[in-house]
Amino acid sequence: MGAPAGAPQMNSTTAAFSDLANAIRALSMDAVQSANSGHPGMPMGMADVATVLYSEFLKFDPSAPDWADRDRFVLSAGHGSMLAYALLHLTGYAEPTIEDIRNFRQLGSPCAGHPENFLLDGVECTTGPLGQGLAMAVGMAIAERHLNAKFGDDLVDHRTWVVAGDGCLMEGINHEAIGLAGHLKLSRLNVLWDDNTITIDGTTALSTSEDIAARYEATGWHVTRCDGHDPEDIRRALAEARDSDRPSLVACRTIIGKGAPNKQGTSGVHGSPLGPDEIALAREQLGWEYPPFEIPQHIAAGWRMMGERGKETRLAWEKRLNADSDARAAFENGTSSGSDLAGPAVEHLIAELAREPQKVATRKASEMALGVLTEAIPNMIGGSADLTGSNNTKTKATDPLTADNYGGRYIYYGIREFGMAAAMNGMALHGGIIPYGGTFLIFSDYCRNAVRLSALQQAQVTYVFTHDSIGLGEDGPTHQPVEQVMSLRLIPNLNVYRPCDAIETAECWALAIASPKTPAALCLTRQNLPQMRGEGDADWSASSNRSAKGAYRLKAAENTRKVILLATGSEVHLASEVAAKLEAEGIGADVISMPCWELFEEQDDAYKADLLPNVSPDEILRVSIEAGVTLGWERYTMANGLNIGLDRFGASGPAEDLFEKFGFTVDAIVPQIMNKIK
Amino acid sequence: MGAPAGAPQMNSTTAAFSDLANAIRALSMDAVQSANSGHPGMPMGMADVATVLYSEFLKFDPSAPDWADRDRFVLSAGHGSMLAYALLHLTGYAEPTIEDIRNFRQLGSPCAGHPENFLLDGVECTTGPLGQGLAMAVGMAIAERHLNAKFGDDLVDHRTWVVAGDGCLMEGINHEAIGLAGHLKLSRLNVLWDDNTITIDGTTALSTSEDIAARYEATGWHVTRCDGHDPEDIRRALAEARDSDRPSLVACRTIIGKGAPNKQGTSGVHGSPLGPDEIALAREQLGWEYPPFEIPQHIAAGWRMMGERGKETRLAWEKRLNADSDARAAFENGTSSGSDLAGPAVEHLIAELAREPQKVATRKASEMALGVLTEAIPNMIGGSADLTGSNNTKTKATDPLTADNYGGRYIYYGIREFGMAAAMNGMALHGGIIPYGGTFLIFSDYCRNAVRLSALQQAQVTYVFTHDSIGLGEDGPTHQPVEQVMSLRLIPNLNVYRPCDAIETAECWALAIASPKTPAALCLTRQNLPQMRGEGDADWSASSNRSAKGAYRLKAAENTRKVILLATGSEVHLASEVAAKLEAEGIGADVISMPCWELFEEQDDAYKADLLPNVSPDEILRVSIEAGVTLGWERYTMANGLNIGLDRFGASGPAEDLFEKFGFTVDAIVPQIMNKIK
Repeated sequence: MGAPAGAPQMNSTTAAFSDLANAIRALSMDAVQSANSGHPGMPMGMADVATVLYSEFLKFDPSAPDWADRDRFVLSAGHGSMLAYALLHLTGYAEPTIEDIRNFRQLGSPCAGHPENFLLDGVECTTGPLGQGLAMAVGMAIAERHLNAKFGDDLVDHRTWVVAGDGCLMEGINHEAIGLAGHLKLSRLNVLWDDNTITIDGTTALSTSEDIAARYEATGWHVTRCDGHDPEDIRRALAEARDSDRPSLVACRTIIGKGAPNKQGTSGVHGSPLGPDEIALAREQLGWEYPPFEIPQHIAAGWRMMGERGKETRLAWEKRLNADSDARAAFENGTSSGSDLAGPAVEHLIAELAREPQKVATRKASEMALGVLTEAIPNMIGGSADLTGSNNTKTKATDPLTADNYGGRYIYYGIREFGMAAAMNGMALHGGIIPYGGTFLIFSDYCRNAVRLSALQQAQVTYVFTHDSIGLGEDGPTHQPVEQVMSLRLIPNLNVYRPCDAIETAECWALAIASPKTPAALCLTRQNLPQMRGEGDADWSASSNRSAKGAYRLKAAENTRKVILLATGSEVHLASEVAAKLEAEGIGADVISMPCWELFEEQDDAYKADLLPNVSPDEILRVSIEAGVTLGWERYTMANGLNIGLDRFGASGPAEDLFEKFGFTVDAIVPQIMNKIK
Repeated sequence: MGAPAGAPQMNSTTAAFSDLANAIRALSMDAVQSANSGHPGMPMGMADVATVLYSEFLKFDPSAPDWADRDRFVLSAGHGSMLAYALLHLTGYAEPTIEDIRNFRQLGSPCAGHPENFLLDGVECTTGPLGQGLAMAVGMAIAERHLNAKFGDDLVDHRTWVVAGDGCLMEGINHEAIGLAGHLKLSRLNVLWDDNTITIDGTTALSTSEDIAARYEATGWHVTRCDGHDPEDIRRALAEARDSDRPSLVACRTIIGKGAPNKQGTSGVHGSPLGPDEIALAREQLGWEYPPFEIPQHIAAGWRMMGERGKETRLAWEKRLNADSDARAAFENGTSSGSDLAGPAVEHLIAELAREPQKVATRKASEMALGVLTEAIPNMIGGSADLTGSNNTKTKATDPLTADNYGGRYIYYGIREFGMAAAMNGMALHGGIIPYGGTFLIFSDYCRNAVRLSALQQAQVTYVFTHDSIGLGEDGPTHQPVEQVMSLRLIPNLNVYRPCDAIETAECWALAIASPKTPAALCLTRQNLPQMRGEGDADWSASSNRSAKGAYRLKAAENTRKVILLATGSEVHLASEVAAKLEAEGIGADVISMPCWELFEEQDDAYKADLLPNVSPDEILRVSIEAGVTLGWERYTMANGLNIGLDRFGASGPAEDLFEKFGFTVDAIVPQIMNKIK
């Protein structure tokens, strides 16, 4: 847009601060209006804070969005996605284009309703489910300190900046996340709280009376405040946060929807378009005389200048990286995914198990696998939500990661399952780290939405879920997973592994680490299991990983096949015993071990039909055995198959008594099969 | 056990405080030892605090465990269940007997690993999943204040006492629970924190540096401390807590496993038996010379005396209750379950809908049903986790429940899904209240374990989960449920309803409120749906509730039946359109609406076979249509049926575009069916 005749030629240096910030406001209100859906309030309220952050504090280079030493910016209040899209566009990222922004919230536009890390560079993580952005940022800040400890200030020296709303602070996960950050003294984590006193239902006073600053201080945070519309005050507060030796909360007092004269400061502007009339008035009030989606040249140039601020720093960093080829190799190696190392790492262990079978719990087998994996893959960082000795997640190679030793590789996450899961997502997305962490399978419920976000974000996180059935025994129904294994299988892009013995456990671990775009949940027993595998495994290699097909025939029928037994985990040995009894009666029975349904689903039809020929149950009866809900198993057993499972809550008692009580015995199962095949 | 010859005759008045407390310690260490599993540390550490609480503060009467005005005692640190069992036994509850305690953690004993409300009177709620006991106590304290506002001090005047551990305080839900309690100024809620600085992994310093007192104070709590082994100091602190006008946290500094000379004060005593040697030494140190499971008469008598303390108060309360038969009727009526009122309450609404069909979202239909239900059933208390206008949970009859108006019936829970769900469990278990609360279906993930506890505890809670599929549109994959409906169906004893129109919604609401032992999850649309029902519903009554069978034939095939279409919620009208198209091609197709799988499963074989005859797909093809994962549908469609669903994450865009993109259209579905039945 040209300057009016007679006016001085505009250039970047003449773009006023308010013009820069108003560009965000204009794009936000116009995009939401055009989509007729979205959240204008937050971006309009936080435009000034974001402008100060991007113009003077954030280390970034839009021309190299993957630069390892960039600052991470996390929009935890993800519903305000237009703030992120405006910033990315204005500072010069290749995407989103103005066309993408015009198509905000439309199919095909990378400008989705909430920011998606897999759609846009510069979006460090997927946010929207409240509280998790901030909690992922904690993981990013841990990753930074850990890699700094490994590679020094020259190569790793960045910050994590978060914009969070009242919702992010009110959610329970906030307590877990800030407790962990305070404990680990993550001074490079700075949270800019959009303190606008408004939530969807109305003012925050409807539902909370908390002194948030005092709470953050109680957990070891530095807290400061600023007027979120006064650039100088914002600058002062951000500098204070940057320079503090603790994680910092900056309470930015803002007016939600600032600029919309009638609606600003109300919940009405939170999640609805302003409407054409109010937008016209806002343009007037803001002095923004430009048409929708047009940014005048002088303002665009001002933003581009900000976007170019970091280039020199990035080039200097690359120079340092390239100065020493050994150091460069070490850095690159030390921040790679490790996928190719996993298979070879377990070779020796499996060969040994083949020679000398072990009757151990799969949680113990997991510890054995982790022992060799963490030895071979220095990027793996483990931890547990206060169940280290039960989850068997700690290995010799992993010293504690603490405020005094960021170089450690084991995190005592405390009793914070959700916080742990989100932190692991943050570490994985930061890059350079392959996180795994443990809790009881039942408490996957506590972190379920973060598991879902691992899957949605394609983040390589491995969940070590032990105590995976009534086999945990006496702790009773509150602790006995019944529906959890199946319910994790429902999450797209999550591989759920339930190995049956020590060898399968090592195989599943190798597969988990070998899939950088798919997170994994390992469901492991508390109780010992006999080793089912070993034959043919003495020369095991990644290419002979039988679990890689998700399901395989562990034992073929000897008599004419009348039955196919399908089982997972602790029920595979039971299936084998059932098969033996059937064979003794002259009835041929295959035993199929199914450690990972998702991988089985990926196999070709021929492989599937070989295991599960599509014939009527009268010809071959399919029987599933799993100590959990049966719903879902009909996919493989068909409607007239037989499903042995547990469709009620468990009970408190020794494991053997429970398996007996609930019918997981040869004597209980064989008659049901005989009855069906008669 | 008789007194030794020559010794003075022991009687209750001579039982020293330490003897009383040591009875708890002895029973706890012996029961855990005998079970060879369990948690002796907490009961031994908190024995002194519990003794003071039961002897001087708690209002209870073991001979009337259901007394409506009793204090509620919640053992939030449920792993220390022996504390509860010892207290119940010693104070004279009919159960557990000493035999039950001998069989601690064995099948058939009511002394389960964690306390189960459905096994023992005096166990107010099921605990073990950390943090939720305290959060349920918040609900109980809300219930008390609300009923007090309705019925006055004469009839409702009790407290809620909680024993919580470090885990309960570290979990995220703690933040939500105490934030709500502080905001509502629940002064009758007192939390006794077992401040022993030990978690499973070791000292609390491994994972937290928080100033817990400061945090509680920041959320409006009164905080005091005491030496948890000094009766006088405990007494002082409990009195302070009782008398405060805010909810109180009492930090009881204790030694975990106190009495076990070598193991006390370490994490080794948290969750393992002490072993016979250490138990022998503990007996010595405690001066407890009695054999396992024997409580000498004078100590038993001392405890019985405590148990009788409340009888008089209870009798006086009953006298007040019975003094006025109208007041008594009002009280009893006002605290009943309301199950019989629900059906009649929606009659008129349904008849009206039958006359004048409405195209509304089922969330809106839910609001209509709630309008008449909350009018007819004064015990219903609603709320939402900051999505009131989206969940449509507020009705004319429900004023806000606030610190200034406990008589209100609508709770602004704030952005606290997990805290809301747990509070609702607490309210339902307290009795006298029928709670319901809303959030987006996707955030059922955030409160999933509390939903599970509703089911396990048989608590009448209704979850209003709106925005139940990609039909919510532009908010994108973080907000679009894909696996949630199915995953809720996996939870035992939870009725999951997904109604297809305004009439079915009212029917499902009536069913939800009519099942006092089974919680319900209503999955409701954001988008408008055409009304499918109406024919034959003009004289609707509870007995003609078609949803009560879980599934029913909405439309019978006109041509020879070759296809059965099964659908729920927003896909029922699509199924009808598919059927119409098939009929036009001469292919007969039934349409089955399946609003509640769990209720369908309860029907007899004849009913099921009528809807779903067991014939081969070549004869009749079964097709499911649901905008969510397909896994699970094979139960009804059989392996060679056809499942139309969404086995991936959604996308951001307008709802119609998404349904089109993901194949939920007549044009996309009909060819697949034709192809199959060829």
